[in-house]
Amino acid sequence: MKILVINSGSSSIKYQLFQMAEEKVIARGLLEKIGEETSFFNQKSIKADVELKEQISNHEEGINFILKMLTDAKQGVISSVNEIAGIGHRVVHGGEEFKAPVLITDTVIAKIEKYADLAPLHNPANLMGIMACKKYLSHAVQVACFDTAFHHTLTPQAYLYAIPYELYRKYKIRRYGFHGTSHLYVSRRLTGLLNRDKEDLNIITCHLGNGCSITAVEKGMSVDTSMGFTPLEGLVMGTRSGDIDPAIVFYLSQKGYSTEELNDLLNKKSGLLGISGISNDMRNLFEAKERGDEKAKIAIDIFCYRLRKYIGAYLAVLGKTDAVIFTGGIGENQAAIREESLKRLESLGIIINKERNEAAIKGQEMEISDDSSAVRVYVIPTNEEAQIAFDTFEIAQRYENQI
Amino acid sequence: MKILVINSGSSSIKYQLFQMAEEKVIARGLLEKIGEETSFFNQKSIKADVELKEQISNHEEGINFILKMLTDAKQGVISSVNEIAGIGHRVVHGGEEFKAPVLITDTVIAKIEKYADLAPLHNPANLMGIMACKKYLSHAVQVACFDTAFHHTLTPQAYLYAIPYELYRKYKIRRYGFHGTSHLYVSRRLTGLLNRDKEDLNIITCHLGNGCSITAVEKGMSVDTSMGFTPLEGLVMGTRSGDIDPAIVFYLSQKGYSTEELNDLLNKKSGLLGISGISNDMRNLFEAKERGDEKAKIAIDIFCYRLRKYIGAYLAVLGKTDAVIFTGGIGENQAAIREESLKRLESLGIIINKERNEAAIKGQEMEISDDSSAVRVYVIPTNEEAQIAFDTFEIAQRYENQI
Repeated sequence: MKILVINSGSSSIKYQLFQMAEEKVIARGLLEKIGEETSFFNQKSIKADVELKEQISNHEEGINFILKMLTDAKQGVISSVNEIAGIGHRVVHGGEEFKAPVLITDTVIAKIEKYADLAPLHNPANLMGIMACKKYLSHAVQVACFDTAFHHTLTPQAYLYAIPYELYRKYKIRRYGFHGTSHLYVSRRLTGLLNRDKEDLNIITCHLGNGCSITAVEKGMSVDTSMGFTPLEGLVMGTRSGDIDPAIVFYLSQKGYSTEELNDLLNKKSGLLGISGISNDMRNLFEAKERGDEKAKIAIDIFCYRLRKYIGAYLAVLGKTDAVIFTGGIGENQAAIREESLKRLESLGIIINKERNEAAIKGQEMEISDDSSAVRVYVIPTNEEAQIAFDTFEIAQRYENQI
Repeated sequence: MKILVINSGSSSIKYQLFQMAEEKVIARGLLEKIGEETSFFNQKSIKADVELKEQISNHEEGINFILKMLTDAKQGVISSVNEIAGIGHRVVHGGEEFKAPVLITDTVIAKIEKYADLAPLHNPANLMGIMACKKYLSHAVQVACFDTAFHHTLTPQAYLYAIPYELYRKYKIRRYGFHGTSHLYVSRRLTGLLNRDKEDLNIITCHLGNGCSITAVEKGMSVDTSMGFTPLEGLVMGTRSGDIDPAIVFYLSQKGYSTEELNDLLNKKSGLLGISGISNDMRNLFEAKERGDEKAKIAIDIFCYRLRKYIGAYLAVLGKTDAVIFTGGIGENQAAIREESLKRLESLGIIINKERNEAAIKGQEMEISDDSSAVRVYVIPTNEEAQIAFDTFEIAQRYENQI
């Protein structure tokens, strides 16, 4: 069975075509700058790699184009779109309602629209992908996989803010958490790797990419996570501030900043970029630090220090922790970040093995803790698309059986 | 030598008169509702307890009235104001400049005025007390003791936010921390109690009153603290939210809340009061919880859970922690809060002794950890006034010797 995984952004569509149950990627591609004068397209597949410039006005045209490329006699990998049995869509916000991937019905679409109030940048873009697929792949099962779903197991002490309760009741202001698919994926991988029941394991998962979040996973369930009402809260990220004193917003507002400017400032001009003044990319910061740049160094220090504090906090949440997992672009590839953020945690049971940490190979699952460490530490490459393909495949099978 | 300690608020003056070096309080009092139609005054002393209603228009009249009561033939405890050799003022914000208590000069006054930009509710009120004392006690040494001073040892990784660096440079937006006098006082008390050098001890101090903050004290120095640019950040407090996703401010602003309303909401209508809808006072919440009130219970749960996470974070900051101290109204008097917030920390080396914890006597320094606990846990009543008296006495002596 072939499953297409779609990540539809406001001006881009990322996709992967999987052969299931083998979890084999037979094609992957990206269409960028939709709606601009020139859109960029690339596709890599078992058959050929393509790069093209096109003029794609909207997501409907975009999906149509992608399907043409997938079925193209020369570049394509399937002979007909009818081979695609299911489409798994990444959807950012599922509100309090969606606790797992679901078959997309008109009711589900209406709810994704409703939660656009909570994720105005993402849900409408995700929906455009869904609507386009409904049009061109009406035969296939469509599934929504929510970034928030894995965190539905948070209890009120973790998800409620200490603000007037009626703001939760009226506006549903609470911690939702994001990156759920990634945290779920790597924690499941580890459970498999250790050949243990998820009920026996407490894990801290650190997803460190351009966006960063950390999750406390107790017996397979997310019990706390650093991103909150929005992806702004928590760890230091590429361009996002993570945690700040909310009164900073009031102070800068008095100094003449508008709410829009402050929203933009904290989401797009802060984080590693804001401190360093150089880049939101950790690789560039390490290069700058090498050259003796003081602010690049402090940006890296703050990133690791804040991560270390969250690891400590989640050790306290879990009581007994079996493992810490690093994933995401930074988590998988920056040994120095892993080492620095685990510094001084020996008395809390975490001892990294310097050699193993530095020997970790890109793209591989590796243990990097010392044999003497009470808590195991792993690098596990994330694969949100594989998780979405897996979940979509499961639902597609169920649906097929029902017919 | 007699030292007067003044805590001057926007419409109140709290004071204590100390006999030093004995650290003996010979009178203490409070003048409230300054500037209103009726002001309330009370004074307790070794001689008599007084309660009076007066009409006091401003802080100058207030200080004058207090001095009259202290020297009153019937109610007073001194025969002349000349007996007061030094006045120690609590000042909330000392910016980045003041790293210890200082003799108040015109330059110091100008700087306290300057930092009113960072503490508009507090510094101007503190200054009114200083100016009134300058007028009526011109013979005496005046000392400013800053709430921020103890935290001057924070390093950039702890004090910088992940926002554009120029906001730190231009507006000095950074973590300052507050309650410094209390964190310093209890950590010094414990150092004495254990008869150890401060250089040998790493301590986590939890000040839990109507305002709450937690500090990581490494070798006698504050290295991290939960209050930040303002006292809004960090733990859940009586009416303050503590940490939230800053994007909540943007969301509510879109829903029509003004910046002023949001500032008021997070500072005065949130925290325990906001969640419970009942009270900002932990004692009332425990009563309500007893009656089966669900929201009082959840407010208490969130308070403890968030404190537990901070304790975990600071264990990670300190590496090796010798002791945790509870202080402040809640910290000293609520055994259930101490027990709940230390739950599940056994594998991190903290084991509370239930009997000792419940047997802790109000106003006494007590150990409440189990003998098997690697980290000692103490209840230590705070006494910011004694710390201010001590610091003022030291400076007054130095000043006297210089004449």
